[in-house]
Amino acid sequence: MNIHASIRSKPIQHFYLDEHNLCYGCGQHNEDGLQLKSFWQGEKAIASFNPKKKHNGIPGFVYGGLVASLIDCHAMATAAADHLALHPEVEDLPRFVTGTMTVRYVNPTPLNDEPLELSARVTERSGRKSHVIVSLSCAGKVTAEGDVIAFHIPETMD
Amino acid sequence: MNIHASIRSKPIQHFYLDEHNLCYGCGQHNEDGLQLKSFWQGEKAIASFNPKKKHNGIPGFVYGGLVASLIDCHAMATAAADHLALHPEVEDLPRFVTGTMTVRYVNPTPLNDEPLELSARVTERSGRKSHVIVSLSCAGKVTAEGDVIAFHIPETMD
Repeated sequence: MNIHASIRSKPIQHFYLDEHNLCYGCGQHNEDGLQLKSFWQGEKAIASFNPKKKHNGIPGFVYGGLVASLIDCHAMATAAADHLALHPEVEDLPRFVTGTMTVRYVNPTPLNDEPLELSARVTERSGRKSHVIVSLSCAGKVTAEGDVIAFHIPETMD
Repeated sequence: MNIHASIRSKPIQHFYLDEHNLCYGCGQHNEDGLQLKSFWQGEKAIASFNPKKKHNGIPGFVYGGLVASLIDCHAMATAAADHLALHPEVEDLPRFVTGTMTVRYVNPTPLNDEPLELSARVTERSGRKSHVIVSLSCAGKVTAEGDVIAFHIPETMD
């Protein structure tokens, strides 16, 4: 089954090439990392993450850096899956990297047994650039909004 | 020695009240966390952080979420120390929380033996709000810029 037929069946990150799959936030090969898993639903991607007690910020709430990390990685996966969906000729999942990210912490994010739910979609595309908007919610309440400019990774990072 | 006399002698985070000192990014009481330490130099705060190999993003570079986490926590410490410096009557270090954070990833941040160096200062203050600008560099090259709105923490987070 080619990637276009199977992209919805597994986490988007499952399809990253091995060398793109080591990220602390979402790399499936980073055993110490968060291993965020994003799922493509066509036009949008969703993810769910269970923060650990150590991810505390102000007592009882998730620290802002985790919220930013999840938004960042989820946005990159969304941009990649969106690019794939629009390019039937592409056979490998592309990798995007973050250009600019704005996170608005609209409500404190509770740290309890409730998972954090992410949803994201691409709103604009131009050349190598995709604009991704992300929402993060807990128990049905949006606690953070992300606005992310993602770039299709260049051949080298030099 | 009161806090105004001693704020430059130890990490800013050392002066957070215990209940404000559990953050994964900068809490000195969070044994599993990053324990970022920011130092007040008068008008600006600096910090240095040694990323671990696990903090990989794209191979050879730091993942964006760590960069955002460090900028976030360092900005909060900067806002707190700045507030203290401007309020001689204050006896406890205040705690700020993030309202909005923009991170511009202007260059890839290398992941090697070089520490990440942060510098931040408050550019505007209005009521409970402080605007903090942050730069993060590695081996003398700026790799990320942060623009952060910090809020003096309310009495409760409800």
